[in-house]
Amino acid sequence: MTDTMTRPSTQSNNSLISSARVEGTHVYNADGEKLGTVDAIMIDKIEGNVAYAVMSFGGFLGIGEQYHPLPWQSLDYDEHKDGYVVNMTTEQLKAAPTLGRDDYDRLKDRIYGAAIYSHYGHTPYWIPIA
Amino acid sequence: MTDTMTRPSTQSNNSLISSARVEGTHVYNADGEKLGTVDAIMIDKIEGNVAYAVMSFGGFLGIGEQYHPLPWQSLDYDEHKDGYVVNMTTEQLKAAPTLGRDDYDRLKDRIYGAAIYSHYGHTPYWIPIA
Repeated sequence: MTDTMTRPSTQSNNSLISSARVEGTHVYNADGEKLGTVDAIMIDKIEGNVAYAVMSFGGFLGIGEQYHPLPWQSLDYDEHKDGYVVNMTTEQLKAAPTLGRDDYDRLKDRIYGAAIYSHYGHTPYWIPIA
Repeated sequence: MTDTMTRPSTQSNNSLISSARVEGTHVYNADGEKLGTVDAIMIDKIEGNVAYAVMSFGGFLGIGEQYHPLPWQSLDYDEHKDGYVVNMTTEQLKAAPTLGRDDYDRLKDRIYGAAIYSHYGHTPYWIPIA
């Protein structure tokens, strides 16, 4: 039996999750401190990959808020926290690339994108594995 | 200057689009008839791919509504329609795989998934290109 109150768009299973369920999920650092919330999932229209999960961080009523684009692979889901863990200290995250609300267009620049992936120790999805 | 009223999560550019912007977008057939609306974006947690865009179709107040899982590659964005076009007649779509609200778990079955991809003439993202 499935819970009939569960909306299909919020269901997940072993390998699939709805983007609507990811949005708004808390993000923690390796020490369990809350860093922020998933603000947006950016999809590569051509490749069909999740290019970035953008995490909103800090600020108050939208003022001073920062947006960190993260490679999808850098987020590990933690069942107990019901959130994602980024294996990075708060200090390391402070040094990570951030975007303003009006800067999302920068993400289409793959040199900038490669720097983001490199910061988190991941290979960009658009670079074939040798 | 960018419109400061634009929320970052709804912005798109040449190659990237926010999942929040995809959800709720209309889907049309090749004849320009409206087929339905994007209900959910299902992400493969491990691979980081968009596994399916699930389109809601027909029904009234949620009764009799059907959910079609579509490979991301089968959706072509049409600027003039401000919606996606599936290159398929309404009759062909009626023969396409559908899911009930409680059946989303079936999507994790890759044999079922391969049948969906095959119906739309696409190779599943989890099968390496030879």
